[in-house]
Amino acid sequence: MNSPDLQRQLAFLREIDRLKTVIRKSPLIDQSRRENSAEHSWHLAMYALVLSEHAAAPVDVLRVVKMLLIHDIVEIDAGDVPFHEPSTHAGQAEREQLAAERIFALLPDAQAAELRSLWFEFEAGDSNDARFAKALDRFQPMVHNAATEGGTWVEFEVTEAQVIARGKPPIERGAPTLWEAASELVEGHYRR
Amino acid sequence: MNSPDLQRQLAFLREIDRLKTVIRKSPLIDQSRRENSAEHSWHLAMYALVLSEHAAAPVDVLRVVKMLLIHDIVEIDAGDVPFHEPSTHAGQAEREQLAAERIFALLPDAQAAELRSLWFEFEAGDSNDARFAKALDRFQPMVHNAATEGGTWVEFEVTEAQVIARGKPPIERGAPTLWEAASELVEGHYRR
Repeated sequence: MNSPDLQRQLAFLREIDRLKTVIRKSPLIDQSRRENSAEHSWHLAMYALVLSEHAAAPVDVLRVVKMLLIHDIVEIDAGDVPFHEPSTHAGQAEREQLAAERIFALLPDAQAAELRSLWFEFEAGDSNDARFAKALDRFQPMVHNAATEGGTWVEFEVTEAQVIARGKPPIERGAPTLWEAASELVEGHYRR
Repeated sequence: MNSPDLQRQLAFLREIDRLKTVIRKSPLIDQSRRENSAEHSWHLAMYALVLSEHAAAPVDVLRVVKMLLIHDIVEIDAGDVPFHEPSTHAGQAEREQLAAERIFALLPDAQAAELRSLWFEFEAGDSNDARFAKALDRFQPMVHNAATEGGTWVEFEVTEAQVIARGKPPIERGAPTLWEAASELVEGHYRR
């Protein structure tokens, strides 16, 4: 390969293949196994394409999709930390920042800077694009739990109040109509 | 949920979860298992974000990413048909068109029409966006094979001439510099 930039791009694209082996707690809807972080990222990008009209404020769909495609890449080094396992949380933010520095730095400098800054923007959650992306990241596992007789809500004995406390602020902020839908899913499970 | 459109959008997003259970022949780079079509679609979208400068003609990155995120959804009904198993090819085009009609029709009509037409554009491969997307879809498995001591080239006893005959036309048309890189990967495997 003549181009050193292309070599760095391919090294990054080979490295991120490892995201397919990071296993989340959420079940697939057919309950055959747990979801991995790469296919979860694909699903969230589809949520962004299909649900962008529900964003609280106008969003740049390409930027939202980019954020969702890369938001979990740091888990290649830092692992997935389930919300309902607080024992695993200590030091996770630092591990993820180190991972972002290492993994995006495999790319040519300008691309590394762009994706790193998009990742930090998602983490901060202060822009319209990041708020909508974060709302989808919280909303999709709720859809899966509602479709699998409770999924991780049952597995981790999560109360309705805990589900609402975790889901309502980010989802209502980023996509209010999706919170209305989510709260109906929660009621449908906990008030059967 | 008050909005019937949102109900249809969520029905579609639940249905496409099944793409995570469609297994391709390509191995993960760590060779722990074969790749599924949902995580493959995520990886191709990342290829598009990182490699768009290599497109043969200017492309709309959001349209290319959309095509790659949805290009395999028809496999939920039609299955993945490995190129190196011709016995499975009969009737596949018809099965995929029926699948596109059924699955995209779960969405509100305007979104169904948009995604169906993007899927047909990808299949036809006649636009700059579709040519680049198709080049990436052929290029990524070559990167995986080169990184796994031959992967499906070895498993299906594919000759160097067959690999070039299948890969060169679409990759050179959509992304000439990526074909240069691909041909070096092929040589690296077959001329060891």
